[in-house]
Amino acid sequence: MSKIKVAVLGATGAVGQRFVQLLDKHPWFEVTALTGSDRTVGQIYGDACRWVLNEPMPDYVRSMRVVPTEPGLDAAITFSALPSDQAKAIEPAFARAGHGVCSNASSYRMELDVPLLIPEVNPDHTALINVQRRQRHWSGFIATNPNCTSTGFTIAFRPLHDAFGIRRAFVVSMQALSGAGYPGVASLDIVDNVIPYVSGEESKVESEPCKMLGQLNESHVVDASIKISAHTNRVTVIDGHTVCVSLEFDRPIGPREAAQAMADFKAPSIVQTLPSSPRCVIEVRSEADRPQPRKDRDAGKGMTTVVGRVREDPLFHVKFVVLSHNTIRGAAGGSILNAELLVAQGIVS
Amino acid sequence: MSKIKVAVLGATGAVGQRFVQLLDKHPWFEVTALTGSDRTVGQIYGDACRWVLNEPMPDYVRSMRVVPTEPGLDAAITFSALPSDQAKAIEPAFARAGHGVCSNASSYRMELDVPLLIPEVNPDHTALINVQRRQRHWSGFIATNPNCTSTGFTIAFRPLHDAFGIRRAFVVSMQALSGAGYPGVASLDIVDNVIPYVSGEESKVESEPCKMLGQLNESHVVDASIKISAHTNRVTVIDGHTVCVSLEFDRPIGPREAAQAMADFKAPSIVQTLPSSPRCVIEVRSEADRPQPRKDRDAGKGMTTVVGRVREDPLFHVKFVVLSHNTIRGAAGGSILNAELLVAQGIVS
Amino acid sequence: MSKIKVAVLGATGAVGQRFVQLLDKHPWFEVTALTGSDRTVGQIYGDACRWVLNEPMPDYVRSMRVVPTEPGLDAAITFSALPSDQAKAIEPAFARAGHGVCSNASSYRMELDVPLLIPEVNPDHTALINVQRRQRHWSGFIATNPNCTSTGFTIAFRPLHDAFGIRRAFVVSMQALSGAGYPGVASLDIVDNVIPYVSGEESKVESEPCKMLGQLNESHVVDASIKISAHTNRVTVIDGHTVCVSLEFDRPIGPREAAQAMADFKAPSIVQTLPSSPRCVIEVRSEADRPQPRKDRDAGKGMTTVVGRVREDPLFHVKFVVLSHNTIRGAAGGSILNAELLVAQGIVS
Amino acid sequence: MSKIKVAVLGATGAVGQRFVQLLDKHPWFEVTALTGSDRTVGQIYGDACRWVLNEPMPDYVRSMRVVPTEPGLDAAITFSALPSDQAKAIEPAFARAGHGVCSNASSYRMELDVPLLIPEVNPDHTALINVQRRQRHWSGFIATNPNCTSTGFTIAFRPLHDAFGIRRAFVVSMQALSGAGYPGVASLDIVDNVIPYVSGEESKVESEPCKMLGQLNESHVVDASIKISAHTNRVTVIDGHTVCVSLEFDRPIGPREAAQAMADFKAPSIVQTLPSSPRCVIEVRSEADRPQPRKDRDAGKGMTTVVGRVREDPLFHVKFVVLSHNTIRGAAGGSILNAELLVAQGIVS
Repeated sequence: MSKIKVAVLGATGAVGQRFVQLLDKHPWFEVTALTGSDRTVGQIYGDACRWVLNEPMPDYVRSMRVVPTEPGLDAAITFSALPSDQAKAIEPAFARAGHGVCSNASSYRMELDVPLLIPEVNPDHTALINVQRRQRHWSGFIATNPNCTSTGFTIAFRPLHDAFGIRRAFVVSMQALSGAGYPGVASLDIVDNVIPYVSGEESKVESEPCKMLGQLNESHVVDASIKISAHTNRVTVIDGHTVCVSLEFDRPIGPREAAQAMADFKAPSIVQTLPSSPRCVIEVRSEADRPQPRKDRDAGKGMTTVVGRVREDPLFHVKFVVLSHNTIRGAAGGSILNAELLVAQGIVS
Repeated sequence: MSKIKVAVLGATGAVGQRFVQLLDKHPWFEVTALTGSDRTVGQIYGDACRWVLNEPMPDYVRSMRVVPTEPGLDAAITFSALPSDQAKAIEPAFARAGHGVCSNASSYRMELDVPLLIPEVNPDHTALINVQRRQRHWSGFIATNPNCTSTGFTIAFRPLHDAFGIRRAFVVSMQALSGAGYPGVASLDIVDNVIPYVSGEESKVESEPCKMLGQLNESHVVDASIKISAHTNRVTVIDGHTVCVSLEFDRPIGPREAAQAMADFKAPSIVQTLPSSPRCVIEVRSEADRPQPRKDRDAGKGMTTVVGRVREDPLFHVKFVVLSHNTIRGAAGGSILNAELLVAQGIVS
Repeated sequence: MSKIKVAVLGATGAVGQRFVQLLDKHPWFEVTALTGSDRTVGQIYGDACRWVLNEPMPDYVRSMRVVPTEPGLDAAITFSALPSDQAKAIEPAFARAGHGVCSNASSYRMELDVPLLIPEVNPDHTALINVQRRQRHWSGFIATNPNCTSTGFTIAFRPLHDAFGIRRAFVVSMQALSGAGYPGVASLDIVDNVIPYVSGEESKVESEPCKMLGQLNESHVVDASIKISAHTNRVTVIDGHTVCVSLEFDRPIGPREAAQAMADFKAPSIVQTLPSSPRCVIEVRSEADRPQPRKDRDAGKGMTTVVGRVREDPLFHVKFVVLSHNTIRGAAGGSILNAELLVAQGIVS
Repeated sequence: MSKIKVAVLGATGAVGQRFVQLLDKHPWFEVTALTGSDRTVGQIYGDACRWVLNEPMPDYVRSMRVVPTEPGLDAAITFSALPSDQAKAIEPAFARAGHGVCSNASSYRMELDVPLLIPEVNPDHTALINVQRRQRHWSGFIATNPNCTSTGFTIAFRPLHDAFGIRRAFVVSMQALSGAGYPGVASLDIVDNVIPYVSGEESKVESEPCKMLGQLNESHVVDASIKISAHTNRVTVIDGHTVCVSLEFDRPIGPREAAQAMADFKAPSIVQTLPSSPRCVIEVRSEADRPQPRKDRDAGKGMTTVVGRVREDPLFHVKFVVLSHNTIRGAAGGSILNAELLVAQGIVS
């Protein structure tokens, strides 16, 4: 079987690099184009890109030439690592031109006819693509993955919401530096320090999960009626977002039931066979002091959500800690898994 | 006027060193004794102590000889920097022998007849000392300061509770390394990492503020009926605990009113004149990204509580961030301020 | 006595801020102007400047309006915190217009008629100012301070070179983040990492000390014939450059003699009375593991050079470690001390 | 072919864990015993060991029971991760009892009849084992790997010394935290700091390379006549020692020739086929700012030595930077590679 051709839009940035790295030797996808800004167009990727990942730059991209971010690429799927202001204008142009856009940008996440997608959480929401195509007269489409901080705890919420109904949630993040891109956070701002603020983050974290946990209803999603309050913070960690969560359910639930529900959670069977799908969706740890970003972010090659410290909450019902790799599961890896789902569902071929 | 003689119990540890440093050139107190463990007794302090503070060791202690931690020292006040297991047995012996014990240990904080004290919050709770002396037949006494994480947000809660009545509070800490003492947290555990766990911390943080904000009632304190849920975390910061807070009041209160109440807060006049009293009790900052530990921990020489990001909370009423220096305001400095209050109230002389 | 009026050129950058902070309440100088780039001109400093120091912004500058970096300011001395490419063109214009320029920029350090100055090292080199004025027909002048890495070890070299004659020196630096300005080093580049490279640094470190330790000879300085090899590295430290040094002398010298010479070193008497002059020029420590940047950078308010681990070198004669505060002694503080010297010498009034 | 049985002595410590991790699924070796201290003996490894590596504990060890560190284990090879004071007494007992001891401890490295071994550097030095057995009447033996800091640059020195003759070397290290074991360096000592001292390190770094680069001569090694001066420092890096090197050769050599010699270096063919042998022994990078520990330590699964910044030295001939993974190539991985060599040479079977 020949591979599906894909492109990476904004391939020289930090998230773009993660796409490039994760698509190396991908069993289904073949990267045919890397796009960049005016500054880099025409250069070979190995020269154009200041590589920031620890993993070395894959050989396959070194001598690929960076092309402009314009529709017409030889690619059924285009992975968008564009900044949201650029994504706003560019992604619809690609969808109109027939490309499937799997986007990490926030620009279209909350549009009614755009799926905001985590395969283990809401694989049926891809049905919005039909609505989107009808309404917008696009031959391609846009499908999005959520914000890196929303991702981890929304996965943890899925089995809990199904079993017990979540009413209210407090979430407080301690986010990694890679979430801010490159150069991102200045070292003078964060060494021996915490920045208790991540621009634009709290409103995303308070809204995106409700869409993903909502019910698909003909032409749109009816948001789950969960109220979320978020505090988002930046800490001195390279990769891996840690989130403290307190949950109130429809009825009193104890930590044991909650932990069991998360540990038992299985992805829908169509998702389990996807190449980037982790064997274990949620790993529930029993140690007093886990999860920790440096030690747990690479679980399931960065695609497993790690939960720990599940315990009673004196105000609500249960509290715990969630850890998720922000540039793999929470960005490029999540977007690639979405594309795989769309292929498995026959939406892209 | 001659100075009051004081001793530091457990003077070679990290908190003990902070007492030693803050008592250098104190206008009211004169350090007459430093106590240590068997290992250090008999040595001069300069040799016995592995000094961990950035500020250099004060000259006055270098050649003082470390003595055993036993009652009978020439000191009206003994500042206890003992570990709580040792404090349990030793502090009552000192109180029985007539010493006033101002303790940073947790052992007696929640005893009904022991004041848990922040001068700006509950200076009247020192009346428990009379109860304590009657009940225990002590000529001395024990007065305690709260846990370093409780300290900062309890100060912020005082004006809010008085004005609006706090019902429920979520508090999530990002705590400094110095809170774990020395050697404390191994560097291999915390570089490029977060530890979402601080042993024994959450139960203290959920209970101590209620005692401090409670009403004195003849022989004991009736706890404030505030329900608190705490998540406590360790981050890569030398000094300064950052706490994210969400508050529910008796009635709907907006961020503006809450910020105003905190900014307007004044210490009782007897407290304002104490030598270690900061000019500004609570500094409310308006920047989007403050307070930050490295930049704000030294406000008011480490005695000011810095609050920022006061904003609406989607679940409760108001959320904000509190920053407090954990080894100054939250430990040695807080304990010294307590001693100064006791002197000003005539309880010690 | 009325104060001498001074201006800070490039006042909103990281070094500019350090000038502003150190000039607060200066006994001799009064800041009359702060200059900035087109982006900031016209704004008040409190708004124009993203303040990066831990010390709060001094009140005196908050509402000063940023002016263009053009000659004609009401200032006898202008402290230049300009980037070297801008300094190249701007500083001569100021000197020509009659301003004394005390510059932290590298642009003119190695010009034959420009003094490269550390008051304790070569106060007589200010005589070059006369040469400079004659040759360039300037009523003002340019005087420079060395690179932040050169500064510390050149001070340590002064008494050693005088007493024993230094022939060859290996110097390997571990430099602080603040040396790169703001935003400077990206956190993603330096957390859990070392960058064994500082752009342009090694050539400065290998040449500047020879000029400063050289002999003034009519119209120029004859460089000291010391050969230096430098490796410069960036490490995860906020402030304070640590330098490992190995020295070969004209004759075999042991660590004891070297340590003694450094400890005994006194500034010339004209320098000792300058307001920014540290009481102790070189502090020689005897512990096995000092100096350390976090613990020693603030010695002498950041103006003292701290030396430790003076020991025998198997290849050359002696090796040791030097620590110096890079933005105080190695930049703004050094430049201010130079200006004070020029005032004391009657060159500026 | 059945696997060779091996044991890990001191298996619960930081280096012991690295042995356990690297021996997981080893093609030649099978771990039959893990030894520990009195505290851990009798417990299963999963409980006895506070696992500090990022990689998860391998399944094969979880339920193995920790046994005392005493000869008589069912193991042809015992890997010693013992502290050097314990190794001093225990390793000879194992060798006497017929075990081959591949030791990471420093106790016997400099003994005349004990090979100090890096397979790519001095594979012929294993001939000392015969001398050792004859002289000590041991049926087993002790073979050692060098100090973690010596390892990397000694590998880089091999081709240079062969081609050009090294006379003198300055080496300045910036060492990772994991080199100090666990708990090792306190976070309060190293965050925002450098410790310019590693206990006992400099004398090892100045002597071990000369033995390894020496000539085997009947019964012992004649040290290479290279003079080395070392400065060793601790920095805030988890893994990976960075070393700045300046070299003087027998004749003037330029950076290009030196870089070429290192890049061309091949391991002896017997070494190339060993399971832990990296494909590339020395990787020479051309970027201005590499190698860097976080980005280069995992080259060749932590077994490749990465060199960069090869340039002219103003005092000697050439200077460069060497990076080596200290707990893999510089400890457990190096020791395992030694054992593989001994098997390939037929010394162990």
